[in-house]
Amino acid sequence: MAEYIPVPLFKAAEQFAKLPGIGMKTAHRLAYHVLSLPEETVEEFTSAIFTARKTVRFCEKCQNFTALQEDESPAEQETVICPLCIDEKRNFKIICVVESPRDVSVFERGGGFNGVYHVLHGLLSPMNGISPEDIRIRELMERLSGEVDEVIMATNPTVEGEATATYIGRLVKTIGVKTTRLAYGLPVGAALEFADDVTLTRALENRNEI
Amino acid sequence: MAEYIPVPLFKAAEQFAKLPGIGMKTAHRLAYHVLSLPEETVEEFTSAIFTARKTVRFCEKCQNFTALQEDESPAEQETVICPLCIDEKRNFKIICVVESPRDVSVFERGGGFNGVYHVLHGLLSPMNGISPEDIRIRELMERLSGEVDEVIMATNPTVEGEATATYIGRLVKTIGVKTTRLAYGLPVGAALEFADDVTLTRALENRNEI
Repeated sequence: MAEYIPVPLFKAAEQFAKLPGIGMKTAHRLAYHVLSLPEETVEEFTSAIFTARKTVRFCEKCQNFTALQEDESPAEQETVICPLCIDEKRNFKIICVVESPRDVSVFERGGGFNGVYHVLHGLLSPMNGISPEDIRIRELMERLSGEVDEVIMATNPTVEGEATATYIGRLVKTIGVKTTRLAYGLPVGAALEFADDVTLTRALENRNEI
Repeated sequence: MAEYIPVPLFKAAEQFAKLPGIGMKTAHRLAYHVLSLPEETVEEFTSAIFTARKTVRFCEKCQNFTALQEDESPAEQETVICPLCIDEKRNFKIICVVESPRDVSVFERGGGFNGVYHVLHGLLSPMNGISPEDIRIRELMERLSGEVDEVIMATNPTVEGEATATYIGRLVKTIGVKTTRLAYGLPVGAALEFADDVTLTRALENRNEI
């Protein structure tokens, strides 16, 4: 290859190909694209990515990603607390447990939740060798002091999400904290005819008096 | 957004989203992925890309991408000649004109061509505002001294590839250099029944005695 693809170009393509969901063909296309950009643009690209990796930390409370403040030296401060976990307007007595930082974004976009979060960074999956020590369950249990009233399990309604919710729910109950699960039912605005059978059955089971 | 997505993470996602074919959702996924990598891995990624942009140049003869030698300072040397164009085993009298550097790779992989190349870096496309000055036709004409016997037009068999081949073919003929076009016909190993009508008609027209 090296004879007709310049080595640095090939190496750049190899790096792109390491990203999830990007095959060797797309990686080559991206590498060629980079060559067509002004040098400053490429520098902006690479420095934004390196800065993200360098300055983003896990919040030591909720485990969500959070950035170091710009006036703080990265070396001085290895643990940080995210803006949500120091926001006095939030209700620290309710913890919503989610799979990933993206789920926090989804709830915050909705604006319907005023408690705090706990990000597991994964779901239990014995098939893929992901056991309780591999996700941030220990950190959740450490937060459940006398000050927490309720833990809402908000993992996805999938097999793994369910299993994780059940597992953590049991653990949390043993120390006497109330545990709840997001409701199943019809999506608002959806047509009844498009609902799958399981969702419809759950919507019936969980029906409310009006 | 900034309140629940750390700014550096958002900026990294924005940069990924600028790449062709990568939407905002994939860009966020990639940015989150970068955070999960060791810092050295991220540095390898960003430096490979920056190095590619910094050290890859156009060959001043064939216009293909080529890398500066490692012992050469980028500032000293703005133009370079690629390994193919200084390889004495190649036949410099035959120039194969292609759309992109990737096409050079395709021919070299095949190994059936011993001449040199000329990379246009695009095809004529009046619809998209790409006129002869936008692709490297001038550079091709400058190479056609008395030493060149034949120009092979090897642009893709598409409308734009055809138009570009015809345009350049006429130009080259005016200075008395032989111009050829890649043959149309059945792909080797393909079943007759899957050939489209145009290809089949061309294969009939260009039939050879056996």
